[in-house]
Amino acid sequence: MGVSIGELAVRFGCELRGDPGVQVERVATLADADGRAVAFVANPRYRQQLAGTRAAVVVLDAASADACPVAALVCQNPHATYARIATVLHPFPAASPGVHPSAVVAPGARVDPGAHVGALSVIGEGAVVGARAFVGPQCLVGEGAVLAEDVRLIARVTLCGGVEVGARTVIQPGAVIGGDGFGFAQERGHWIKVPQIGTVRIGPDVEIGSNTTIDRGAIEDTVIEEGVKLDNLIQIGHNVRIGAHTAVAACVGISGSTSIGRRCMIAGQVGIAGHLSISDDVVITARTGISHSITAPGVYSGHIPHEEATTWRRLVGRFKRLETFAARLKALERRQAAGPDQEKHDD
Amino acid sequence: MGVSIGELAVRFGCELRGDPGVQVERVATLADADGRAVAFVANPRYRQQLAGTRAAVVVLDAASADACPVAALVCQNPHATYARIATVLHPFPAASPGVHPSAVVAPGARVDPGAHVGALSVIGEGAVVGARAFVGPQCLVGEGAVLAEDVRLIARVTLCGGVEVGARTVIQPGAVIGGDGFGFAQERGHWIKVPQIGTVRIGPDVEIGSNTTIDRGAIEDTVIEEGVKLDNLIQIGHNVRIGAHTAVAACVGISGSTSIGRRCMIAGQVGIAGHLSISDDVVITARTGISHSITAPGVYSGHIPHEEATTWRRLVGRFKRLETFAARLKALERRQAAGPDQEKHDD
Amino acid sequence: MGVSIGELAVRFGCELRGDPGVQVERVATLADADGRAVAFVANPRYRQQLAGTRAAVVVLDAASADACPVAALVCQNPHATYARIATVLHPFPAASPGVHPSAVVAPGARVDPGAHVGALSVIGEGAVVGARAFVGPQCLVGEGAVLAEDVRLIARVTLCGGVEVGARTVIQPGAVIGGDGFGFAQERGHWIKVPQIGTVRIGPDVEIGSNTTIDRGAIEDTVIEEGVKLDNLIQIGHNVRIGAHTAVAACVGISGSTSIGRRCMIAGQVGIAGHLSISDDVVITARTGISHSITAPGVYSGHIPHEEATTWRRLVGRFKRLETFAARLKALERRQAAGPDQEKHDD
Repeated sequence: MGVSIGELAVRFGCELRGDPGVQVERVATLADADGRAVAFVANPRYRQQLAGTRAAVVVLDAASADACPVAALVCQNPHATYARIATVLHPFPAASPGVHPSAVVAPGARVDPGAHVGALSVIGEGAVVGARAFVGPQCLVGEGAVLAEDVRLIARVTLCGGVEVGARTVIQPGAVIGGDGFGFAQERGHWIKVPQIGTVRIGPDVEIGSNTTIDRGAIEDTVIEEGVKLDNLIQIGHNVRIGAHTAVAACVGISGSTSIGRRCMIAGQVGIAGHLSISDDVVITARTGISHSITAPGVYSGHIPHEEATTWRRLVGRFKRLETFAARLKALERRQAAGPDQEKHDD
Repeated sequence: MGVSIGELAVRFGCELRGDPGVQVERVATLADADGRAVAFVANPRYRQQLAGTRAAVVVLDAASADACPVAALVCQNPHATYARIATVLHPFPAASPGVHPSAVVAPGARVDPGAHVGALSVIGEGAVVGARAFVGPQCLVGEGAVLAEDVRLIARVTLCGGVEVGARTVIQPGAVIGGDGFGFAQERGHWIKVPQIGTVRIGPDVEIGSNTTIDRGAIEDTVIEEGVKLDNLIQIGHNVRIGAHTAVAACVGISGSTSIGRRCMIAGQVGIAGHLSISDDVVITARTGISHSITAPGVYSGHIPHEEATTWRRLVGRFKRLETFAARLKALERRQAAGPDQEKHDD
Repeated sequence: MGVSIGELAVRFGCELRGDPGVQVERVATLADADGRAVAFVANPRYRQQLAGTRAAVVVLDAASADACPVAALVCQNPHATYARIATVLHPFPAASPGVHPSAVVAPGARVDPGAHVGALSVIGEGAVVGARAFVGPQCLVGEGAVLAEDVRLIARVTLCGGVEVGARTVIQPGAVIGGDGFGFAQERGHWIKVPQIGTVRIGPDVEIGSNTTIDRGAIEDTVIEEGVKLDNLIQIGHNVRIGAHTAVAACVGISGSTSIGRRCMIAGQVGIAGHLSISDDVVITARTGISHSITAPGVYSGHIPHEEATTWRRLVGRFKRLETFAARLKALERRQAAGPDQEKHDD
């Protein structure tokens, strides 16, 4: 299934340096690529690897083009262009339309004839599976859940009752969308469960990673807007809203009723407290804890990098004595302000 | 399925201000409620929203009652009363007793005739499913596992062999109860697996969140006492014991053999080291790491909130130089103590 | 199914103090053991419990042997010897070879006749299940995935297409191996998915915990080398390599393209940034964030332990004013250096 690099240049608006008739079949790294493979350089620090490559063609920007010993597809955003070329060469395998005989589809569910429902999946009463949607093996599409066209549930995805998923959204295995939010009322040292009657609405072009959990709303819905990208093992509490095109890395926890803006980037292991509001275009670096709202775009941090353990223990010791430091500093200032004569009298 | 607000007042011990014959059908937020809906105010900071509500009735406390423009159900603990009313109006859907034909039930399993076993679930040899228990689709009830009456496994819950679950306990999708604990003996740089032969015992009225994992004991059992509430993506190591009515928020990790007291509240992303003992009535705030036992009730913290990134980097720089600070402070004190004359001599 | 302690002594190279004919059937704690049980002491602090034990025999080292009131199996590494004895007394239950009638096996899959495939599992086209492999209930072995001999997928494990699993490796429920890596190219505030065409290769004798996720590589593969032990709820990003015999505790996140050495020990809730290199024999203590590469063996830390909340708040306040501290310290030093006369003139 070869494609000529001339066709790729035309299709993706690149300047081609080299023979347009060369055929490529796959993508590869600069180091491993052979004469049928496309490689790319998006980060200048990998430019030095260009010299040794045997790729058929390399996707790169103008600044790297002269250093390229083979054909080049020159463009402004090599990473994005590479992503598009890789999607042409390595398309998601087409799934045959139809319902696997081992799947359990409720009589009142509507499955588009062009959709695929995999082995041992369950489609609940009143659920809707849209055109060309792909429901992999062992998925659960709960009662009344709605999948728009071209949704892809890779495998073993759980959508609880009433969850809505927008067009082209991709959900990786183990994700649980629409489990109950963590809502309990306290009474005399016991907890009383508060029914969670909202649902989860997920926009189009969203991606949700493996084993990520998104809770249904307490009364209103939890909302993930279009183009949001969520990595693995993320927790999204009830009534959270995540703005369009925000990306969230793995192991992040977002507590209930917090609202995140559009185009934010939230790095790994960040935690965001509940009932907060985070503005658009906020970047939060890895392992930061957010305990109050952020009202202005910018970069926010809260993580102290590691040290060799004995050095670290000494620093922690100093930290724990900061109160003493403060008192000693104050005493020094007071005595210095008093001047040498008073000091004498003190003695 | 309407209920009169007079009946709700009687049933839940509220003072009713308004017409007892008004019928309600659902709960809603103050802002969205219409004339068939119950709303509530549990937090004084939402009291201002009362003015605009069109709810049929609002559940609130005496302090908020005068500000309520519609009927009121006045009580001491509006959140708890709301939870009970919401449960009446939005009950868990009754599941038909019986075993779905696609479920796989071992010949030696005992499923109560009033229990529900959903599509594509597996009930292992010797397992017991109690009266009115609800086993949702795609669950695994391992060999010899025991579900008491009214247990609800929402969907795709995994209970490994021998796990015991108390009455009325609810487990959300993706939870894994009774996987092997992380037990390995080291020998010459390799690891030898230690068989994990205990199980997990879960009390009544517990709630376990989506994709939470609770490991089986190494020799003795891991124990979750009655009324414990666990949020999503929590890790509970082998041989841990969690005391009754303790609540644990999402993304918490509790290492092996640690014992947590009763009525504790543990916030999100907290980590608790192994072999520790945490007293009753301990509150641990978000993102705190607990590395030694806590012997007294109280509130414990260990998280530094975020800053704008350049401010944070400067603070980290100062932190990393705390040793230098200490030395400079000492030098200042020494010179000051020596007095001005000695200082002169030093020069 | 008794075994004589004499036989255990011979088989595992222990010195036996006691009657070799005594039969044992199970393992137990020192406190609970009866006359048919083996207990062990690996940690000197549990030695005091020896006095009261009624075990048939205790596995321990020479230093503890004299304090043992019952028979003793004396050896250099009691924990490792205990692990081996426990494995003899509590073997993994033998599964009958064969494919459960409810499993869905693709026509082109190859399942060894000695392998077990459990209820409602799916074996994809072109997948291979090796000799004596155990595939528990509700597992997915994706298209072209390969399980070597004696692999054990406990239950509900998801292996996506092409994943390779080495001999004797054990994977706990809920683990997802080979979900897509988190790869997106940014373009004008939107994200374009980068196809993830690598896979995951897992060596022999690996253990993977419940609900842990290991992403497939972007172009090349994600690699877990032999003997690696991964606890629950761990995230391994795309293109990561983890060296042989490294152990990783629960809730750790390892970002994409990072390489971890051999025989490392990584404690709970650690986070490691992407594109780093961690040397062999590195120990990282709990909750540490690693933001740059580690080139030398050793112990590394970055966590500040908890305090009672009011003390902690005061310390955080001091920390946030470290800039002010620095300025005050500098001012003191400047004035002290200037000497008393200049101070007078300043006034």
